[in-house]
Amino acid sequence: MSDATPDEAESLDPQDWPAMRALAHRMVDDALDYLETVAERPVWQAVPPEVARRFDGPAPREPEGAQAAYQAFANDVLPYPTGNIHPRFWAWYMGNGTVLGALADFLAATMNSNLGGGNHAANLVEAQVIGWLKDMLGFPAGASGLLVSGGSMANLVGLTVARNTHAGADVRHQGVAAAPKPMSVYASVEVHSCNQKALELLGLGSQALRRVPVLADYTIDLAALKQMIDADRGAGLQPICVIGSAGTVNTGAIDDLDALADLCAREGLWFHVDGAIGAVAVLADNVRPQLRGIARADSVALDLHKWMHVPFEAGCVLVRDEPAHRNSFSLTPEYLEHGTRGLAGGKLWFSDYGVQLSRQFRALKVWMSIKEHGLDRFGRMIARNVEQAHYLGELIAARPAELELMAPIGLDIVCFRYNPGRLDDAALDAINRELLLQLQEQGIAAPSYTTLGGRYCLRVAVANHRSRRADFDALVEAVLRIGAELLGAAPAARAAS
Amino acid sequence: MSDATPDEAESLDPQDWPAMRALAHRMVDDALDYLETVAERPVWQAVPPEVARRFDGPAPREPEGAQAAYQAFANDVLPYPTGNIHPRFWAWYMGNGTVLGALADFLAATMNSNLGGGNHAANLVEAQVIGWLKDMLGFPAGASGLLVSGGSMANLVGLTVARNTHAGADVRHQGVAAAPKPMSVYASVEVHSCNQKALELLGLGSQALRRVPVLADYTIDLAALKQMIDADRGAGLQPICVIGSAGTVNTGAIDDLDALADLCAREGLWFHVDGAIGAVAVLADNVRPQLRGIARADSVALDLHKWMHVPFEAGCVLVRDEPAHRNSFSLTPEYLEHGTRGLAGGKLWFSDYGVQLSRQFRALKVWMSIKEHGLDRFGRMIARNVEQAHYLGELIAARPAELELMAPIGLDIVCFRYNPGRLDDAALDAINRELLLQLQEQGIAAPSYTTLGGRYCLRVAVANHRSRRADFDALVEAVLRIGAELLGAAPAARAAS
Repeated sequence: MSDATPDEAESLDPQDWPAMRALAHRMVDDALDYLETVAERPVWQAVPPEVARRFDGPAPREPEGAQAAYQAFANDVLPYPTGNIHPRFWAWYMGNGTVLGALADFLAATMNSNLGGGNHAANLVEAQVIGWLKDMLGFPAGASGLLVSGGSMANLVGLTVARNTHAGADVRHQGVAAAPKPMSVYASVEVHSCNQKALELLGLGSQALRRVPVLADYTIDLAALKQMIDADRGAGLQPICVIGSAGTVNTGAIDDLDALADLCAREGLWFHVDGAIGAVAVLADNVRPQLRGIARADSVALDLHKWMHVPFEAGCVLVRDEPAHRNSFSLTPEYLEHGTRGLAGGKLWFSDYGVQLSRQFRALKVWMSIKEHGLDRFGRMIARNVEQAHYLGELIAARPAELELMAPIGLDIVCFRYNPGRLDDAALDAINRELLLQLQEQGIAAPSYTTLGGRYCLRVAVANHRSRRADFDALVEAVLRIGAELLGAAPAARAAS
Repeated sequence: MSDATPDEAESLDPQDWPAMRALAHRMVDDALDYLETVAERPVWQAVPPEVARRFDGPAPREPEGAQAAYQAFANDVLPYPTGNIHPRFWAWYMGNGTVLGALADFLAATMNSNLGGGNHAANLVEAQVIGWLKDMLGFPAGASGLLVSGGSMANLVGLTVARNTHAGADVRHQGVAAAPKPMSVYASVEVHSCNQKALELLGLGSQALRRVPVLADYTIDLAALKQMIDADRGAGLQPICVIGSAGTVNTGAIDDLDALADLCAREGLWFHVDGAIGAVAVLADNVRPQLRGIARADSVALDLHKWMHVPFEAGCVLVRDEPAHRNSFSLTPEYLEHGTRGLAGGKLWFSDYGVQLSRQFRALKVWMSIKEHGLDRFGRMIARNVEQAHYLGELIAARPAELELMAPIGLDIVCFRYNPGRLDDAALDAINRELLLQLQEQGIAAPSYTTLGGRYCLRVAVANHRSRRADFDALVEAVLRIGAELLGAAPAARAAS
């Protein structure tokens, strides 16, 4: 082949490969330092206004070079993470990530494989990972699966298959208006909001989500569910699906999945499990019994970037009925027709099972993580987090004059508040609101919050392989200190006392 | 803080940090070697059966360690990429990726930021990137945007907003059955299949996609479009949206976007542009004029992992009407309520604009890539690919006795076939089918194929910053050689001659 002509010398490859290599090695050292010392830094710090202003400018027309791009990152981005890499981050529900997981994303992007389909190794990796997850949850070998961006997409895919198979009409072709009756889907009031979003997207409308009351432990009330299904049928609706929660976002409650499976079998309904939080806890000895019945689901959404600590994004949906799954998404135009030889050969066409056509190699970080640690270690990490949640519960129980547990600890989520007594709920809400902000702003710990029964609470979701008991000691100590400071300072608190 | 107790010593962090660091440096060297020498390897090679079998086993229960996980990757995965990193990969429509793009994914996963929302630097990066893309396409500053997994998701988001704003009912709450009339959406027969998938997902059904004929240059027939809209209105349908294609997948045709914008304005329709292939070509002097009118769209889907060569996945949707966008997706439960201070402070809540709640830091690779190269270099790379497509067209035209151009070169996509004369279409289909497989199997080049007017053609989509003219010389040379070999060997060819 002839050499490049002068106008062909430019590309997006490094013009100086050794310099790029040196920069890459520097990045590795910086990143390893960053993660090795994460516990020494504040869990979170606000982006200072003068830094934030640096993100206001227009795109450069001329090259600034890789070195400058990295320097801008190192100066203005790296110091201000979300915080979920830190041992005292317990907000919302996220994993920490791992070093090898991050490196796997580099390797995946280096190959830049596209897992829409075809004959190349990345698809084999994803197929193997899906097989592992099917095994984990007790799904049959013939079930299908797809790695997706996370729980929202996994639930959307599962609910799409539920809609398409139970509508009583060819809704893929004719739309949901062709269904003989309005469809309805059932879940507890504690179900994650992404399921509502999915039903809105699917054209069923949020009114199709029938919200079932919960028991005192925040699990779905099965008797109420049965009554609602019967009443809706009587009112001309067409129940199609029940969503069980395997770990609710507020309190970590796990619905009685076995009972839901029984009910769905009796009623002829699709049984979907939103297991974004808790499904992978089948690996943990102290949770597995609570998840009995998950293997009977028609579809399960799970997340690897939460309690498996794979870096964002990595979720998975499993569907028991592979043809139903494929028939909801496969739409193969000629330019994508599957062959038996060449690049377009092979049987692995993941784009037939979900929304995306081009798909990144997110399977690699899952595959390498599971090889690195083995499933049992993940199980031990999950079990330890559950123990830590109960440890925090004990710390709270030991200070009844100042701290109040607000809900049973369903899994690994602890909802509590600072409550020194003599304050009404409005004053307690105000003091705990400020307390949370100061915990974060002082860089000590990052719980988030929720409201239970109308009351504001600190919410500690312990999906963190870096947390140790001492971190919870530090949390409680800081809550007591800041609470006392606020109690001394707050006019509202004084007024109510 | 006290030291870890014995049962707390285990985590998913490296037990031997120096060993992990050494492994990471080895990965960097291997990956840089891999990319620096990519042109020396076959564009593609099949995964050998004995390698494929290694992906059959169960998940390990016990740790294998990071080193072993990497070795398995290096042995069994790395040698078998999709091929789109190679200078002679022109299949489907993918970018190459870049070295810094891959490193940026490592940095993003190291921080493991979650761009659902909140006050941290990653959100500022995404906001800036979206601002840059709005500027690029001429969208107003008040428009909204979201980085997504790619074109399929970007189109889905745009069409969701179109549906929700033009349904004539509160479809988010009541579902699409509440719309006064069945909705219809218009696009040329050449529109990408993901748009049909989106309408199926949205509950409108594939029948809602009204496929408009194309002109000889494969752009939408505007007169036919107008007639179909009128006829559908007469038949009781409710036209809501026209999808313009800025670069069709078969031939790279760009619809007359200005005329479509005029029509949508007159008819009161949402104007969505599927610019997954071509929108970023506004950066290229030799394409920009063809994209006139894209700035008038209500929503645009574009891809950064195609012609901007950001590693998978990186797409973007822009929506002119920010409240309409937010009102289609925002659904903020209490545990996610936005504040003004702390981690949950700030105005950037990207989860209010799309399907996902947890979102990876894909903005970083876009941001660092644009800083590294500057927009003008991307423009030159795109322009060069268009020139290369026409260069290939010239090579084809120079061999009229053997090669046949099958469609006008709309952008950077060349459809042609080996046609030595004296063969009927069935024989030509067979010979070109085999020819494509041999091109791939011999590792020479990876076009894909499509059918145009029922005829099988090789399809060369030149979104490749590594391609040089010599690569197209090599392609044509190989096509002529393999074609002649097949012509000599094929009984079908002999029979028809």
